[in-house]
Amino acid sequence: MTDSTAPLGPLGILGGGQLGRMTALAAARLGVPVRMLTPDADGPVAPLAHVTVADWTRDTTLAAWAAGCRVVTVESEWAPADRLHALHPSLPVWPAPSTLVVVRHKGRQREVLAQAGLPQPAFATPTSREAAHVGATRLGFPVVAKQFEGSYDGYGNETCRTPDDIDRAWARLAGPDGLLLEAWVPFEAEGAVTVARRPGGETAVYPLVQSEHREHRLHAATVPACVPASAEAEARRVALAAIEAVGAVGVATVELFLMADGQAWVNEIAPRPHNTAHLTIEAHHTSQFENHVRAVLDWPLGTASLRVPAACMINVLGTATGPAAPDLADALAVAGASVHLYGKQDVRPRRKMGHVTACADTPAGARQIAEAAAAAIRW
Amino acid sequence: MTDSTAPLGPLGILGGGQLGRMTALAAARLGVPVRMLTPDADGPVAPLAHVTVADWTRDTTLAAWAAGCRVVTVESEWAPADRLHALHPSLPVWPAPSTLVVVRHKGRQREVLAQAGLPQPAFATPTSREAAHVGATRLGFPVVAKQFEGSYDGYGNETCRTPDDIDRAWARLAGPDGLLLEAWVPFEAEGAVTVARRPGGETAVYPLVQSEHREHRLHAATVPACVPASAEAEARRVALAAIEAVGAVGVATVELFLMADGQAWVNEIAPRPHNTAHLTIEAHHTSQFENHVRAVLDWPLGTASLRVPAACMINVLGTATGPAAPDLADALAVAGASVHLYGKQDVRPRRKMGHVTACADTPAGARQIAEAAAAAIRW
Repeated sequence: MTDSTAPLGPLGILGGGQLGRMTALAAARLGVPVRMLTPDADGPVAPLAHVTVADWTRDTTLAAWAAGCRVVTVESEWAPADRLHALHPSLPVWPAPSTLVVVRHKGRQREVLAQAGLPQPAFATPTSREAAHVGATRLGFPVVAKQFEGSYDGYGNETCRTPDDIDRAWARLAGPDGLLLEAWVPFEAEGAVTVARRPGGETAVYPLVQSEHREHRLHAATVPACVPASAEAEARRVALAAIEAVGAVGVATVELFLMADGQAWVNEIAPRPHNTAHLTIEAHHTSQFENHVRAVLDWPLGTASLRVPAACMINVLGTATGPAAPDLADALAVAGASVHLYGKQDVRPRRKMGHVTACADTPAGARQIAEAAAAAIRW
Repeated sequence: MTDSTAPLGPLGILGGGQLGRMTALAAARLGVPVRMLTPDADGPVAPLAHVTVADWTRDTTLAAWAAGCRVVTVESEWAPADRLHALHPSLPVWPAPSTLVVVRHKGRQREVLAQAGLPQPAFATPTSREAAHVGATRLGFPVVAKQFEGSYDGYGNETCRTPDDIDRAWARLAGPDGLLLEAWVPFEAEGAVTVARRPGGETAVYPLVQSEHREHRLHAATVPACVPASAEAEARRVALAAIEAVGAVGVATVELFLMADGQAWVNEIAPRPHNTAHLTIEAHHTSQFENHVRAVLDWPLGTASLRVPAACMINVLGTATGPAAPDLADALAVAGASVHLYGKQDVRPRRKMGHVTACADTPAGARQIAEAAAAAIRW
């Protein structure tokens, strides 16, 4: 445990988006000073203090920023945690670069999960176009082709229905070490389980969230999930085992395919706070952001259970282009809705600008409120 | 309503203590930029951005700081709202200086409440020592003597049991216009009702909080209050009428004496977010801080009802002297407790350093958790 009686050195956060912003707000509540580094001058954290806007690919910048930090965490798996670790080997960086190296490469992630015996789609990691055709034939069409690194929210992914599609996907998505092919998964629903994990291995597992995507982006997240208790238990078991397999520290979310027979297959791991768990701010005894701060500081984790009967979160995506000038009046007039905006300077169509959470007696009741408020924000 | 389609100018907050800090955190969630002015370099808002630390009694400082603000609010009734209004008459300042002038003078506050016909202790506002003796005799000993301005948390108050006590109180507490004498109130319990009010008069009334003081400082706040529904309704009625009588805008709290017969007498009004309503952050659909931001920006108010069955807040007071180095580990290990620290640089005995809120199925259950966590913080 970090020495909890010394005055708190700042918690460093590499990243300046909404996840870093909400983590900083949770740290503030606990009286933990935060120091952030981001390359983006107009990002959502600009209004929070101690933000250094600089090119974090420069070693001198990174080393100077980190000096004096108590612990450093990252907002995304793409932050330069490995460079920082090389520069400051004695500074704790969570999640560890060894975790990030596995998680951010979709092929390595699949292989580690397979070694752990966890349920997931059948996959192949061809290193040549010819091997991709062999892999697709073995998996059976349709297959999903994914870039090994850098794909998200539908970017860097392609559904292949024919051998010609495989050629096109290879040309577009293959890196020097190939690409990932996954068998098509006939899931009943999608879900996500967030886990907080301390360096020593203590964990707190959040309830299963049911998630719904529209055009490859998360639209809705709802708790409790509408599945039998046995399926929820299985989802939590698989998520916890997946987190332990990659050695994640902090909070991490496992996106899951929920199958008709009650199984939960791992879709993918996000080694950081996750959009499906934003509703923990209002709906759970401890938010994912607070538990992320607690976990990376190696402090006791907070209760991850619900404190309300049900909740739903709806993402607020941009619907215009230009400087952000949100009109909140109609959204705030929706009773029971908690509106979150990330303070982004510019709006673009489909950019994540904020989210709305509602707590209610039933998931359907919460969803109705959150949908109404989210739809009422004008740009 | 302020123009909700224009890019948001900052919300100005005069004050840099924990109330300003928690208001700024609520504003951040709504994407509202905040600009603060405080004379205290080491205050709790130092880690939040856009804080100007300067002497706010200087007109040039105040005017330069306020330029460009969309609306200004104050953290306490003692902030220089009247000077600001004189310097920038077209800038909305909420609560209005006209409200603050009434509320911060305990004699004027009592007179306005009396004109509104609201239940409160019998009182006198003697302007001479002789008149104080006459007043005390009329009210009947014991009486409570209070400084007209600047008394809080037991400072500037004195219980007088004899004419000699009146002489001592006069010497210590009387200002140029005298002091306030109040009849002793045989209350059953103490409570508080927080009200959010927009400039046009729309209000949202929070449920009655039961409060418990120790050595003149708030120790515990609990919802729901353990009183009959009729007494809760009366407390809300009186609080709303008191807020309207002083024309408060933003959130304001009315501290109440709860009487055995179900009446609620006004103890005093705080025209700002209040310690008894900190539990609204976790326990209610909309926190007092968010509703304060909404109200001063003239945006629709959020639902003020509970989203959990019960909650309790316990204040965390300092128990040492020196630089603050809180050890949170034992407190965070208490399941279900939400710990808030205000980031104050130095701890002093009995200084408000933070608070703990717990939500549970019953008030007693919530209290047990919050007390345990608050007692476990080491300085």
